[in-house]
Amino acid sequence: MARTAAALIIGNEVLTAKVKERNGAFLIERLRARGIPLVGVYVVPDDVDAIVETLSLARRRAQLVFTSGGIGPTHDDVTVRAVALALQRPVVHMPEIVKSLTKAFAPATVPPEAMRLAEAPAGSRLIEGPRLKYPVLACDELYLLPGVPELFEAQLETVLDGLEGQPVVTRLVFLDAHEHEIARVLDAAALAEPEVEIGSYPTFDPAAGYRVKVTVEHVERARVDAMVERLVRELPKAAVLRVE
Amino acid sequence: MARTAAALIIGNEVLTAKVKERNGAFLIERLRARGIPLVGVYVVPDDVDAIVETLSLARRRAQLVFTSGGIGPTHDDVTVRAVALALQRPVVHMPEIVKSLTKAFAPATVPPEAMRLAEAPAGSRLIEGPRLKYPVLACDELYLLPGVPELFEAQLETVLDGLEGQPVVTRLVFLDAHEHEIARVLDAAALAEPEVEIGSYPTFDPAAGYRVKVTVEHVERARVDAMVERLVRELPKAAVLRVE
Repeated sequence: MARTAAALIIGNEVLTAKVKERNGAFLIERLRARGIPLVGVYVVPDDVDAIVETLSLARRRAQLVFTSGGIGPTHDDVTVRAVALALQRPVVHMPEIVKSLTKAFAPATVPPEAMRLAEAPAGSRLIEGPRLKYPVLACDELYLLPGVPELFEAQLETVLDGLEGQPVVTRLVFLDAHEHEIARVLDAAALAEPEVEIGSYPTFDPAAGYRVKVTVEHVERARVDAMVERLVRELPKAAVLRVE
Repeated sequence: MARTAAALIIGNEVLTAKVKERNGAFLIERLRARGIPLVGVYVVPDDVDAIVETLSLARRRAQLVFTSGGIGPTHDDVTVRAVALALQRPVVHMPEIVKSLTKAFAPATVPPEAMRLAEAPAGSRLIEGPRLKYPVLACDELYLLPGVPELFEAQLETVLDGLEGQPVVTRLVFLDAHEHEIARVLDAAALAEPEVEIGSYPTFDPAAGYRVKVTVEHVERARVDAMVERLVRELPKAAVLRVE
């Protein structure tokens, strides 16, 4: 079983509709494609308490945690401090970043506000990648990604390159039925094979050409095929429009 | 101060990229316009434990909680059960819904799977509205909205019609500077006026025409104006490109 992941999208700008958030949707798509199960995406403000509390929840539910945003030198960039608190570690300066900053500002000394960019929870590491403008800041299985979408996307791809996943096989059964007419068959099937994921999605759009879409998922194709066969056999004949 | 809100978006289909989630973005926009501060949006699977734990977090952080999805008669519809558990109340049948179902199925009796649509946490109420196909299910300050976007949107609008908010005034300062060059001024301003929300958002897009956008927000225009004046006075003259 692949390790599970969760994500924190950090930023007042998202919760106040000042930006259209897109890192969450990108992460959902990419983790799915890589076969890493995602158990939660939490959008939280630039607030240390809120981040610490939500991180604890995310870490109870998932092995890998990604954060987006709150990385930078201004007062509203609190992610590093919050992660350090959640992990009960001090904030330290990363020597590699101090070195880059020193070089970038030479011959002047690095201003204290810029030096904040070198801060990280103790025990952090940097992950370099060929497509990266800045390296990824990682602490154990926690990846602190920047909120700027171009940077977020490149850093996420670099992290995913180093992780193992198990892509999921999905098949679909389209039905002309009300959900309550198929609930008993789905209940029994889900109970008999709890590891095979069965979803039931009604639509109220007459143009959709069906009334309920049933999804069947597992990492093993044979188990998905067997479940689709079972459903087609047990559901009312007239209700099954097509199988994909 | 307006009461704060949080939202749970419930559904495996969102976390597995099977649907592009849009209820979260809609809710963020509409709460902002109504002046109701949003403190978190949490995307969680169709899993009772995960929903109960996240609901507890949401209720610690906000007075109003909205859920999207997991309302229906199939095995993956667990929102009512999870909300009842979180509130430590039994699940009961709502007499009004039983009555509608009985009428809809007459002269036949209502099948048990359809009767699940009448389930609600004890003490729930229904909110009717002129634009609604189905009434809103509410339990105290918790609103259980359906995941189908058309239904979600109509039900959210009905709930918002009955809530009071305080719209926020936002002004913008566009800067040609690195964040570390303005951090000291922003720090001092944020510390002096902690209730006035100051955000700092860098862009790496050369076409944007600025390097950092500073946002200043409060429900009172006078306090926003005073803060913008202070920032323009204290920031490096050459850095200020324009104020909106």
